[in-house]
This record gives sequence, C-alpha cells and structure tokens, in this order.
Amino acid sequence: MAQFSNYLDALVRELTRLPGMGTKSASRIAFHLITMDDADVKRLASTIVDLKERIKTCEICGGISDTQCCSICEDPARDKGILCVVQSQKDALTIEKTGVFKGRYYVLGGVISPLDGIGPEELKLPRLVDRCRESGVKDVLVAVNPTIEGDATTLYIAKMLKPLDIRVKRIARGIPLGADIEYADSATIARSISDSVDV
Amino acid sequence: MAQFSNYLDALVRELTRLPGMGTKSASRIAFHLITMDDADVKRLASTIVDLKERIKTCEICGGISDTQCCSICEDPARDKGILCVVQSQKDALTIEKTGVFKGRYYVLGGVISPLDGIGPEELKLPRLVDRCRESGVKDVLVAVNPTIEGDATTLYIAKMLKPLDIRVKRIARGIPLGADIEYADSATIARSISDSVDV
Repeated sequence: MAQFSNYLDALVRELTRLPGMGTKSASRIAFHLITMDDADVKRLASTIVDLKERIKTCEICGGISDTQCCSICEDPARDKGILCVVQSQKDALTIEKTGVFKGRYYVLGGVISPLDGIGPEELKLPRLVDRCRESGVKDVLVAVNPTIEGDATTLYIAKMLKPLDIRVKRIARGIPLGADIEYADSATIARSISDSVDV
Repeated sequence: MAQFSNYLDALVRELTRLPGMGTKSASRIAFHLITMDDADVKRLASTIVDLKERIKTCEICGGISDTQCCSICEDPARDKGILCVVQSQKDALTIEKTGVFKGRYYVLGGVISPLDGIGPEELKLPRLVDRCRESGVKDVLVAVNPTIEGDATTLYIAKMLKPLDIRVKRIARGIPLGADIEYADSATIARSISDSVDV
C-alpha cells in the first residue's frame, strides 16, 4: 500500500493501540480529524494529556478522582456504613449509573488470581479491614464479576471481615431482565434458584 | 450520576464527537488512557495535533499529502495516462489497498448533489478538464458510490471529457464476491446483468 501521509499512518498506528479500535475505525477517525476545526483538534489532544496528568487516586476508596478524595467519599449524604467492593473504577461507575446504591465504594483493582500472581496483597484487600474499622462499616456488598476468581475474592473478603461483625453480601446472579428462561444457560438458572429471594 | 472526575467526563465528551464513538467506547478508551504510560499518551496527543497541523492537499490530485505533491502523483512508475476519479481520499486509499490500479487519482471531494447545493464548481470538476489535458490522460475510471448523485456525477464527467477524446469508464456494479444471488436485491441483480462482461 502506497503511503499517502506519514502523519496519517502514525495516528492510525497510535489509535489502533486503544481498546476496541481496529484499522477501519482508526482511519475513519483520522480522516475525520483532518476535517475538524483546528481548535477542536487541539482541545481533544489537550484533554487527553490533561486526563493522564491530572487524574489522581482517591485516598479513601482507591478510585479515580480529580482531588485527593473523590466526590463520593466526600459526600456526607452517602451512607458511611455501607461499602460496595468493586474490581475497578469502571464497575463503580456502572453501579453509580443505576442510582440505587447509596453507600460508598472500595476499588480493589482486580480479583484474587493465583495463576496471574495476584494475591490479596497485590489488591487492596488488607487495607479493606482498616477501612471498615475506621469508618464503622456495618455492611459490605461485594460486586465483582461472577467468575471463579470473583467468587474466591468474595469468600476471602467474607472470611477476613467476619471477626469485625460486618454483614458481607454479594450481588445476585440470575436471569437478566428481559431474558428468557428457556434460552438461559443451566449454570445461570442453577444460580438463580440458589439465589432465590422471598417474594 | 455522580462525577468521579471532570477530566474523565471532559475526555469522554470530546471522544463521543468522533465518528463511530459512543459513550461506552469512549469511557473504555478514557479508562485505558489512565493506565497507559505517560509517554504513550503524550505521543498519541501530539500525533493528533501533528496530523491536523502538517497535513497538506496534493496540488495535483487534491488528495492528502505530507508534501506539496503526494507520493502517488510523484511516482514515475504510475501510469500518467489513466486517471481514477474518486469522491474522497478514503476511497483512493481503499482502491490503493487492492493493488490493481496502476494509474493516478483525482479526488473530487464529493459528488454533484443539487439538493445539498453541491454543483460541479463546488467540486473540482472544472479543473479535471485541465488536469486531463495537461497530463495527456487517455482513460478515466470513475469510482464513485453507486447512488443517484454518483451516477449524475459520472455522466457529467463523461460529457465534459467527450470533446477531449478520453475514454470514460466506471467501476462495475454487481453481486459482491462470496454473496448469494438468491439473497441479492433485485436492483443489484439488474445492474449485474446490464454490466455483464465477456467471459
């Protein structure tokens, strides 16, 4: 393929390193940038650098924040007694969007996975005990992915917090809303039965 | 939704202005950028600005180029007598990838579309005559999209170049490779019959 522009090729190469970005989408975006206003392109570029340079980790929950402490941890209206343990900031954002959770978050940064060399120390699990003790947490809701590693992490947390007299729950597994029992896989159906709740 | 970070929100907002980018993909990319190396993020941002600031329009074909004249127009190995007329630089790139076209390109920048106020003067159609005359073009292959506007543009080009004794062809319409005649739409089948070629 003949090169029309090295600048174009360079940008397509950089863009394809981003998640979910193939050569086609990258080229489409690159061509679009050429037609955009100078100011808009510069703002995009500076926003990228700003995000990387200015974003911090919240000292309390371990999530992302613009300041030392994130807006949720700082919010006096959020219930200090309920802590939602998530794998990543992204999951916290997804839960936050539902608007049903009124407590605070604790971002682990992953789940226990011995095969990948990730033990409790690599995550922020030991610190979770201090966090619960300091803030007087009464309820912990573990919201990690329903995988073997996720389950192991959930059990680890439950065991770790037992001496503190904290109620540890995990989010339910079951049939997604709008789905058909007929087409659900049997493992999910089995979980939906064992996680069944009073009506 | 509570804001975790204004920098994150700002970038997601900028990214969703790009083509094919929804909030989900934009968030995914933004979170990925946070985990990337500082140097990689800065390189991405500067590549974006570089593309916008340094890219030029080739004086000969009207396509994009890093220099006054693009590498294809400069290449003495490319046949000067054959000119492929395309709507956009992107289409030239797509054709170039096939490796079958050995001539040069002429980028119109669009097709005739009276409803959108795009006439021959808005495109680079009048200049096409000079271009053909100057370079001694013998064959013109029109490779625009098979739409009403595309057809109108093709006919306009054919009429315009007739006095110059230039053979004007257009790319064939027909059944795509690997597709099934049974499932092709009747307009495409009709075109594949009228465009049928000797075996």
